[in-house]
Parts: sequence; structure tokens; C-alpha cells
Amino acid sequence: MAKKKEESEVLPRKEDKEAKEHKEPVKATFSNERVLTESSDNAREFYNQSRYGELLDGGRVHLSLIEALYLAEKKRLIVYDSRNKEIDFEKLLNKSKKIEPNFWVRYCVYKDIRNRGYIIKTALKFGADFRIYDRGVKPGEDHARWVVFPVHEGSSLTWYEFSAKNRVAHSTKKRLLIGCVDDEGDCTYWEVRWLRP
Amino acid sequence: MAKKKEESEVLPRKEDKEAKEHKEPVKATFSNERVLTESSDNAREFYNQSRYGELLDGGRVHLSLIEALYLAEKKRLIVYDSRNKEIDFEKLLNKSKKIEPNFWVRYCVYKDIRNRGYIIKTALKFGADFRIYDRGVKPGEDHARWVVFPVHEGSSLTWYEFSAKNRVAHSTKKRLLIGCVDDEGDCTYWEVRWLRP
Amino acid sequence: MAKKKEESEVLPRKEDKEAKEHKEPVKATFSNERVLTESSDNAREFYNQSRYGELLDGGRVHLSLIEALYLAEKKRLIVYDSRNKEIDFEKLLNKSKKIEPNFWVRYCVYKDIRNRGYIIKTALKFGADFRIYDRGVKPGEDHARWVVFPVHEGSSLTWYEFSAKNRVAHSTKKRLLIGCVDDEGDCTYWEVRWLRP
Amino acid sequence: MAKKKEESEVLPRKEDKEAKEHKEPVKATFSNERVLTESSDNAREFYNQSRYGELLDGGRVHLSLIEALYLAEKKRLIVYDSRNKEIDFEKLLNKSKKIEPNFWVRYCVYKDIRNRGYIIKTALKFGADFRIYDRGVKPGEDHARWVVFPVHEGSSLTWYEFSAKNRVAHSTKKRLLIGCVDDEGDCTYWEVRWLRP
Repeated sequence: MAKKKEESEVLPRKEDKEAKEHKEPVKATFSNERVLTESSDNAREFYNQSRYGELLDGGRVHLSLIEALYLAEKKRLIVYDSRNKEIDFEKLLNKSKKIEPNFWVRYCVYKDIRNRGYIIKTALKFGADFRIYDRGVKPGEDHARWVVFPVHEGSSLTWYEFSAKNRVAHSTKKRLLIGCVDDEGDCTYWEVRWLRP
Repeated sequence: MAKKKEESEVLPRKEDKEAKEHKEPVKATFSNERVLTESSDNAREFYNQSRYGELLDGGRVHLSLIEALYLAEKKRLIVYDSRNKEIDFEKLLNKSKKIEPNFWVRYCVYKDIRNRGYIIKTALKFGADFRIYDRGVKPGEDHARWVVFPVHEGSSLTWYEFSAKNRVAHSTKKRLLIGCVDDEGDCTYWEVRWLRP
Repeated sequence: MAKKKEESEVLPRKEDKEAKEHKEPVKATFSNERVLTESSDNAREFYNQSRYGELLDGGRVHLSLIEALYLAEKKRLIVYDSRNKEIDFEKLLNKSKKIEPNFWVRYCVYKDIRNRGYIIKTALKFGADFRIYDRGVKPGEDHARWVVFPVHEGSSLTWYEFSAKNRVAHSTKKRLLIGCVDDEGDCTYWEVRWLRP
Repeated sequence: MAKKKEESEVLPRKEDKEAKEHKEPVKATFSNERVLTESSDNAREFYNQSRYGELLDGGRVHLSLIEALYLAEKKRLIVYDSRNKEIDFEKLLNKSKKIEPNFWVRYCVYKDIRNRGYIIKTALKFGADFRIYDRGVKPGEDHARWVVFPVHEGSSLTWYEFSAKNRVAHSTKKRLLIGCVDDEGDCTYWEVRWLRP
């Protein structure tokens, strides 16, 4: 019972307050693998409030593809191409899929974690797909709590790969999370802990 | 005698009405693990009538590999690559086999169950390959009746694994179905029930 | 919930009334693979009440090794060798193990089913280890309900063997029961039903 | 830091006091899947102190193959065949390998956990290979804390299987342990926790 409580505290769904406020969507332009917002208070809020992208000196925010896609799906961002033509969510998703293999699986996990109210950022330098910060924690304030590896339900893994993921998490002092995406886009999470004998 | 009747009622073959209607096949594009249909009434019927894939906001349907393959084999879907070149059934199957281990065995069971007129969807989160809904039941209307584990005739299993499958079915309040695929692609089904002493 | 009730009704433990009555144990002699009781009312009760062994013309009862062992363990039978020396349970078990491979596993299932108050007899002619009669049913009154295959937890089976067991049960119009014995001698039962497409 | 401490507490090696006391080894006889000890105080200590096997009415202890093998390797048990000829550890291991598939991998995990001072018993009825009791806990006093699945480093698993193992552990209210055995017989353990969204 105590255990169940603990579990439900770890990754709870949060009311998506931000989306409900119906703010004016932020405008952004797409160039290759990155998306650059206009310089506006709403854009800067992406970064200041939820740490989407990076804040540039000029006041714009530099978003990754996955961040832009998420915000576009939430109707908080409108992305334009170099000719100022809108790129809708579908098109943006297709572009992303072409650029990054495994994109759909990674996006499902990203979206699910963001929907639960966590800040999730790349973990390339830690040897994982993403890192996740604890509830209420922003990057810089404290270390990320988890590294997460998104996998597709139909794939399989060797124990060497599994061991590697554990090593990676352990050596970066983070917890290991496997985020398994099923064919309906739903995510199942397993937290794995290496017990050192 | 009563028993025989019961058995034959459980997984009967159904006349495949839809396939006989010779509708115009739906067009779709392939990108990695997923297939995206055009936005059309025929495409939406996939979802509305038989719960293939997920219906997206824009009116398209997001199909899993296994769903797309099934519909392609039934000539109800034509899949194109990113350069608008058709990917025929054989190619799609080969791609799938490379991506997912055990794909052929899983596909045989999927196809067989769909041919009998049942809705079958992933059961990753329940700890099984697929879940099957009772005749005439759609996901959301009622819980799935079975979880099914596709196995190949040449494989073997330990009693620990067999016991685990029973635990899985029991804990998710579904019936356990073993779908054994022989070298001709035919499926034999056994329903297993754990008798608690 | 209805299901759970159903399950618990199938193989419930029964108060072992007979054992509690502390009747005088029946005397019997061991010869090779069979055990012959004295001619007495208590001996005949073995057969008349619970269908242990076969009733011979002279009034004695011919018990199988497994039946004799069970009754010896219950202190309802004392077995003597040809020199009229008592063979205790341990010795009898060791003799049996030497004669029959897989004896311990088979004995665990036999004992467990008898302890639950069911009549269980050989099913050699049906292609299985044992047949089990429904609660309150004696051989001759009605057909056996199950054939049971005792297996040891550490063994494994091929799907060909599994399929054979199903065929056997189906062709003899009985239900298939797998009785899996773990290293503590506890039995787990699975009832398997072949679904004919 | 707190984390490291926690980890090292979970599965620590224990000084193997018993083995150091150089007691007279217990004699036992082998018959098929089981091993029966003589009736002696040292034999009963197997059960009373560390819950090896089951204590029989006559004072002997009924050991499983894996238990006998472990005690034989520790020189605490000498196993004889029916002709009173010693069966050494190698022979016993070879016999076991023939009887049980995956025996070596299972034995490595069994041995490693026993060496750490934990009581480990079959978990067939829970849908796993073994269950492990917490430090100082004996079966019957409290529930087992873990179910453990021994796997070989060279094998692989699907996410359906991984999900199933999590379901099994969750439904039996135990923690899931994967015990991965490398080619040198060393074990790596991962504790997995299903996070329910």
C-alpha cells in the first residue's frame, strides 16, 4: 500500500494549466533541425517557466524539433518555413521522422512526460535520450533525477544493452527509466536499479 | 456436446464482408515504425468500424506496422515511401521482420484473429503481445476478453514461463490464450485457466 | 468475481474425514509392483467408498503402488513384505521411485488430488497419467472429467507435446489438466481447452 | 551517497559461517528429481537453520536437485546412488543439466544468493523461478521480498516478456529481480519497478 502510493507519486499526471490559458500562440521559423521563435514575452516564458529550448541573447528561444513539435501540437506555437508559410503539425512530424530515426517513439515519451508536468531535456552528453527533472525542479537548480530510454514495444534488447543502460545511469548518478511505447502510443515505464553485490 | 458448441462459438471465422466490397484502397505513407493514411472517409472507417490504428486530429489514421501490413495484404491499403514509391506487401513484411524479432509469428496470429472478425490490439502494458475483444465489442466499450501469446511450433517453454503467462492473464482479469503458429502459418489456440486450489 | 468463485469450486480442499476416524489400519502384502490387502471390511471400504484399487473375488483389494503409498502415508494401510516384515512409507517410496521414473512428481499430484476429495485413477488407456472424476462421482457412474499430466517445475515441454496432450484430452472427451509440481511438492493446476477454429 | 549505501545493504555477501565449521557432511541418496538425506541432527539443521528442502515425518530432509547440488559443492552433503556409490558434484551437475534445461544459469543465481546468506526457494506458483526472503526472514515468518528471473547474458528478451515479468512481480506483491549470469558464472542483479502512470 505504501508502495502504491509511492509509485503514483513518481509520475503523476498534472492538470495542464498552461495549455488551458489560451494564450496567443508564439510564432517561430523552421530551419533545418532547429526552430527559432520570435522575440516575445510568451516565447521567453517557454524557457523561463518550463525550460523549453534555450534563451538567446536577442530574446528569442531556440527550440529543438521535438520541443517545437510538442508546443505545436499543444497549439502554443505556430511554425513557419523560410517563405513564411505555415508548417502544420503533420508536416512538422513528417519532416522530423525523416531527419531522426526512432522519432515517433521518442516523441511519444517526450510528450507523455511533459504532459505529466515534468521538465525533460536531451541527455546526449549522459549517454541517453532524455533526462527528466524531479517535480518542480528546473535544470540548473538541481541534477536531473532520471535518464530515460524510449523503446518501441516490438523491439527487443540484449542484456549487454540493458547492462549498458544501467551503467550509464549509475555513472551519471541518475535513475534509469525505460519508457516503452506501444502501438497505441501509450507509454509504460520501468525504473531499473543496479544492485551491486 | 454442449462443450463442442461452446468451443465452436468462441473463435469462429466470419465472412470478410468488408474485403468483398471492393472499396478503393486507402493511400498511406510509411515512416519508420508507423504508417500514416491519407485523410479520407475510407481511412477513417478503418478506425471507426474496426479500430485499426488511432484517429488523428487532422482526420488521418496512424497505423502500426502490423495493422498496415494486414490491410495491405487485404488490398485495402497501399503504402508509399517518402518518395511516393509503392511499397508492396512483400517489402513491407521484410522491413517489419528486420525491425521486430518474432514478427512473422505475431503477424500470423494477428491476421488469423482479424480474419475471424475480432478486434485485436497491443497488450504491452498488460504484459502480453495482444489483447482480443469479444465479438462485437470495441475497445472502450468493454474490457478485452483475452490476452494472447503467439508462439512458434518449434519453440519450447519452461513451466516458469507458462506459470508467468497465467499470472499475467489472471492479474489483468483476462483469459489466457496461447496461439501456436505452425510452419504453414496456421494457428492453433489453447485457452488456459489457472485453477487456484 | 464470479470467476474466482467458479475456480475455487473446481478443486477445493475437503476435510479429510476418513483419515480422522482412526480406523484400524488395513494389512497388505507387497509383491513387485502391486499391493494386495487382507480380506476385511476396512479393506473393501477402500474400494467401495473411494475406489482405491480393484475388488477381487476373494474379497481382497488389489492396490497400485501409488494407491498403497498414499494409504500408507495416511496410516490407513500397513504394508508387509513376503517375510511378513513391515515396509514403512520411506522404504515403499524408495522402492516405487526405483520402479517408476517420475514417481515423486506423479505421487505429489495423486496425493494432492486425493486430499481434495476427488477420485483419481490411472488413465493409461486414455493416453495420460491419471483421470479425475468430478466431485461425488465414482468410476462407472459417470465419465471422468479430467485427464491430468503431472510435470515437474524444472522440466520443459515442446508445443508438439502440449498439442498432443490437448488432442488426447479432446479425443477422450475429457478436460486437460496440467499439474505442475514445484520443489516443495506443491501443485499448481492449469486447465487447458483447445479452441477449434 | 545515501543511494550507494542502500544498494550495498540489499544483497551483501555474508561470511559463510556454517561452511567454516567443518561439520561432518550429511549422507543422502539420489533418486530421480529428488535427494533424501539420512535422519540426523546435521541433516535437520539444513531445514531448521536455512530452510533447505522439506522436513519429513521420519526426520529426514527431502532436498531438491538444486539444493542438493549446492550443499554438495559446499562439502556439507555427500550424495549416493541406489547402490551406495558416491555421486560427486560434477556428476550430479551433469545429471541435473540433462533433466532441467537452463539448469546452469539457474544454479549460478541460486548459489550466488545463498552465498550472500539469503533463503531462496522455488517461485513456480508465483510465475517465476525463485523467490528470495529478506535478510533474517524464514519462509512462513514473512512473505518473500523478491521474485528473481535468472537469464543468461547471451540471451535476449522482448518487451512483452519484460512487461510480463513486471506484472508477475506486481501481482504477487514482490519486487522484481533480474539475475543476469555471465560466461564466468558471475551474477549481475537489476531490480525493476513498474511505475504506474
